[in-house]
Amino acid sequence: MVSVSLGANKYGKAENRVVRIYRDTPRHEIVDLNVTSQLRGAALVDSYLTGDNALVVATDTQKNTAFAFAKEHGIPSPEEYLLTLGAHFTDGFDWIEGGLWQAEQYEWERILVDGQPHDHSFVRKGQGTRLATVQKIGGATHVTGGVKDLTVLKSTGSEFAGFPRDEYTTLVETNDRIMATSVTGRWRFLPEAVEAGIDYNRLYTDVLGVLLSTFATVHSLALQQTLFAMGAAAIEARPEIAEVRFAMPNKHHFVYDLSPFGLENPNEVFYAADRPYGLIEGTITRDGAAPAPDAWTDVPTFV
Amino acid sequence: MVSVSLGANKYGKAENRVVRIYRDTPRHEIVDLNVTSQLRGAALVDSYLTGDNALVVATDTQKNTAFAFAKEHGIPSPEEYLLTLGAHFTDGFDWIEGGLWQAEQYEWERILVDGQPHDHSFVRKGQGTRLATVQKIGGATHVTGGVKDLTVLKSTGSEFAGFPRDEYTTLVETNDRIMATSVTGRWRFLPEAVEAGIDYNRLYTDVLGVLLSTFATVHSLALQQTLFAMGAAAIEARPEIAEVRFAMPNKHHFVYDLSPFGLENPNEVFYAADRPYGLIEGTITRDGAAPAPDAWTDVPTFV
Amino acid sequence: MVSVSLGANKYGKAENRVVRIYRDTPRHEIVDLNVTSQLRGAALVDSYLTGDNALVVATDTQKNTAFAFAKEHGIPSPEEYLLTLGAHFTDGFDWIEGGLWQAEQYEWERILVDGQPHDHSFVRKGQGTRLATVQKIGGATHVTGGVKDLTVLKSTGSEFAGFPRDEYTTLVETNDRIMATSVTGRWRFLPEAVEAGIDYNRLYTDVLGVLLSTFATVHSLALQQTLFAMGAAAIEARPEIAEVRFAMPNKHHFVYDLSPFGLENPNEVFYAADRPYGLIEGTITRDGAAPAPDAWTDVPTFV
Amino acid sequence: MVSVSLGANKYGKAENRVVRIYRDTPRHEIVDLNVTSQLRGAALVDSYLTGDNALVVATDTQKNTAFAFAKEHGIPSPEEYLLTLGAHFTDGFDWIEGGLWQAEQYEWERILVDGQPHDHSFVRKGQGTRLATVQKIGGATHVTGGVKDLTVLKSTGSEFAGFPRDEYTTLVETNDRIMATSVTGRWRFLPEAVEAGIDYNRLYTDVLGVLLSTFATVHSLALQQTLFAMGAAAIEARPEIAEVRFAMPNKHHFVYDLSPFGLENPNEVFYAADRPYGLIEGTITRDGAAPAPDAWTDVPTFV
Repeated sequence: MVSVSLGANKYGKAENRVVRIYRDTPRHEIVDLNVTSQLRGAALVDSYLTGDNALVVATDTQKNTAFAFAKEHGIPSPEEYLLTLGAHFTDGFDWIEGGLWQAEQYEWERILVDGQPHDHSFVRKGQGTRLATVQKIGGATHVTGGVKDLTVLKSTGSEFAGFPRDEYTTLVETNDRIMATSVTGRWRFLPEAVEAGIDYNRLYTDVLGVLLSTFATVHSLALQQTLFAMGAAAIEARPEIAEVRFAMPNKHHFVYDLSPFGLENPNEVFYAADRPYGLIEGTITRDGAAPAPDAWTDVPTFV
Repeated sequence: MVSVSLGANKYGKAENRVVRIYRDTPRHEIVDLNVTSQLRGAALVDSYLTGDNALVVATDTQKNTAFAFAKEHGIPSPEEYLLTLGAHFTDGFDWIEGGLWQAEQYEWERILVDGQPHDHSFVRKGQGTRLATVQKIGGATHVTGGVKDLTVLKSTGSEFAGFPRDEYTTLVETNDRIMATSVTGRWRFLPEAVEAGIDYNRLYTDVLGVLLSTFATVHSLALQQTLFAMGAAAIEARPEIAEVRFAMPNKHHFVYDLSPFGLENPNEVFYAADRPYGLIEGTITRDGAAPAPDAWTDVPTFV
Repeated sequence: MVSVSLGANKYGKAENRVVRIYRDTPRHEIVDLNVTSQLRGAALVDSYLTGDNALVVATDTQKNTAFAFAKEHGIPSPEEYLLTLGAHFTDGFDWIEGGLWQAEQYEWERILVDGQPHDHSFVRKGQGTRLATVQKIGGATHVTGGVKDLTVLKSTGSEFAGFPRDEYTTLVETNDRIMATSVTGRWRFLPEAVEAGIDYNRLYTDVLGVLLSTFATVHSLALQQTLFAMGAAAIEARPEIAEVRFAMPNKHHFVYDLSPFGLENPNEVFYAADRPYGLIEGTITRDGAAPAPDAWTDVPTFV
Repeated sequence: MVSVSLGANKYGKAENRVVRIYRDTPRHEIVDLNVTSQLRGAALVDSYLTGDNALVVATDTQKNTAFAFAKEHGIPSPEEYLLTLGAHFTDGFDWIEGGLWQAEQYEWERILVDGQPHDHSFVRKGQGTRLATVQKIGGATHVTGGVKDLTVLKSTGSEFAGFPRDEYTTLVETNDRIMATSVTGRWRFLPEAVEAGIDYNRLYTDVLGVLLSTFATVHSLALQQTLFAMGAAAIEARPEIAEVRFAMPNKHHFVYDLSPFGLENPNEVFYAADRPYGLIEGTITRDGAAPAPDAWTDVPTFV
């Protein structure tokens, strides 16, 4: 008989689609989230070993709590909502030592009617999905914001040359190519900034603006360089950010060979490929900020 | 031995990801398409019956042509590009009697840098995907424009009541609900308007505006009513449109029952469900316009 | 003021995930369906025009009926279940003139324990999804069976040559290539066979066997030829089938060029491409069977 | 000016669709992989900081190598193929200190013709996707096998009761429910077993059999318990396994309330829900095996 033990684990309810409407005035507001709540605690081992559920805060209870809190505490920002939700579980159940709470936020714009934003009719923005996590682990609380599926492209201002060549290298150097990527990024907040309170919604808007403008203006010698510059710019823009993690696929756009048809193609017609794709992943850290590797436990960053 | 014959058929190359950059000035333009080309012709029967490919314009050739035409003829609009592409095949190969050419267009916005739109850096808009088709069939040419994945929601101004009740009816009547849908719509152009020439890009912008504002302002007694009003408004707005076809899922948002927790929920907290969903499909036709059922052959409308 | 009218339409509830367990003995049976019900009727026009729902059998009622019928009438086969469901609506509401009922069936295999099939534990088969539709239109009832996502590949026994060449043709002829496709097929049953009763489950198994073995054994000169042969074989195998419609993507596998690395590649290493792909669509009809174009209204076949 | 640094990173080419046909005899064999290669090395920092690519082994070169190695070294198993690929980069470029190589394997079955497996025609199995990783980090090499999308269901033999109740708890205890999940599991091999050599293909088949039969036979008091039992059984079955990590969604099947229709529903008709879902994640470790947290760096396990 082999002897085995339980290692790292967590459990909860994933992808609760919580939609909160604020309708105190005729001008409604909407907050649209996809919320995942998961709990950890050493005492939960019995549910794994013997199916003893005496300490298992049901995943259904976690779901109910997520919806109830949208009413009781509102959703000023996904980060604040998750902080309140997480604290409820670790404060309310003494055997729950931590957990991971995640949210995706789908943004909506007001529909324009005769040029005026409508009071209660919205169209989904569709440009990137906002991300947030709260990690409670080892007695600490970590908060991240982020974005995914932010697809950007520059039609010039990108090179790739000077790389080493071996027997398997056929790539031709280029001084002018399309660079396109779908940005997934997460930024970890300094614990002291979380403590002091952050305007998370404003920060998100600021960071997105900085990421986009940096992508646009950096003359790129490699996607790595662009990635680093984008993270550095975000950290520079907002003092609350301790570090930024990016996963950026290099969405290849190949110049289509039109020469068999007697046509020149000076970077005008491209074939956008699906797979394979480059995949560049990197972390940019603020010098002097305390590292917190635990903050990223089970948070999908580098895919 | 059973005797069988070939019925309806077509063949071609699907999902050619054609990206065209206009770079004649430092201010680049981008057109980003997903193009499908398929051909029909009675003489092609031999490829099915005996594998005789003597008349089979290769799907690879169709692909090459799609990319080459992006250079030779440009892409002023997806509709005009598909018209040129389709005419090439029916004019160039006398046994090609018709076909279906389809495009999806992904729209890009210029990235703002210091408040100014950048010359060659873009972010994908993500709000709806533009659609176009050219159908050549029975000697006629039909053109449609359209949109899909345009997700809209109104947080009030929607009712559903007065429906019949049978032994399987449990639904409660409501005079205030969230109504949300993801619009797929296609509009067929009058042949005479196609002949005369249409500013397809301007028309698309106009129609989208009308669809959104109609969705916003119609007090809805049923999604059917909203659908019809949206189609009527599009036809009213643009004289080039003969008919509009919509498929609209009713993306249910259910009021979450917070009463077990001692909380009221006056339409503030909702659970956004995935499946099942209502599915309303309808056609709105301009009175007096000649019907053209062939125009819709194999065009995915009602899903 | 422009005058408009309602054209083709239907409405209902899509993607009801109905799972039926038969547990009369310890050896359970499972039937796992995704069911869509949609209704048509001229009198429904008022719901579109004025939002009058007096005749609108609610989509929620259609959902309840789909689940209730799984208990009341069981699911001997998806075709028979849909026939019962459809008849309920057209027989029970005199203004409902027709509709379209669709099902996908996910098949499950019993898990083997010590080589024996388990009584109540299953693993999803995952090899193709079974399809069925019932169409009630113009006073007639049409039934189809089908399959989708049946992915097949042959590593030799496929050629493509003898096609015409024009100025946009670069494709090289080949006498040995990989041929791979993901079969979507639907077969329409003869009305008289439906009337007489069909063992739909046995027929499905038979047809799948014939489709696969025909794909395997036909030496292919074109995917068109293989498609036709597969349809002919199905019609030959089962006298109940009036016609078969296929959509078959040509899932290209390109020989990877290893010559820069001094390696030969005699059809051993391939790159499996995503997009673009060939798309071959065709109908094979039994000679003498009455055509029924209405049967296919809004049924997704040629995609 | 804020000071920043580069933290954790890696780069490479993702999702290379490598298909290898063995055709030395008329009875062909197929190995169908989706391969991702990514490299790490402290010296690569310059590509991020300044866009200096002098040490950047191009992602295109990694792709070429992946395809070339399928010919040069073959693919006896995904694990062995990745080991060879990884060693090439760390041995061949002295500044490449490590990396992560991942593969998915799609399995194919021979098509039966007259009851006999065909020599060169295959149908995709579709039941679970095989996984493998090789991690080279900190001077060590770690290997994992795994599976994803293995969907299982038991129609009885599952309970959930005895859980704590708080003010947000509404869930009713049950002693008989459907339990269904889609297993994602990865097993890490003991370094000494990797060193000695493993029959990875046989092991995969063995582990899958044990996972399925354990799921079937354990009377489940909680999905946690089933998860742990499945991991323990895998470790017991094969001495090469050091630990197993699982992510198991609880794919809820809710008993549909048929009482409004005067029907009993003793666990016969269920509604299969999409979201939210339970999400149970856990690690089972062999006692005495050296822990290796680094082995899991960036490997998607707990999602």
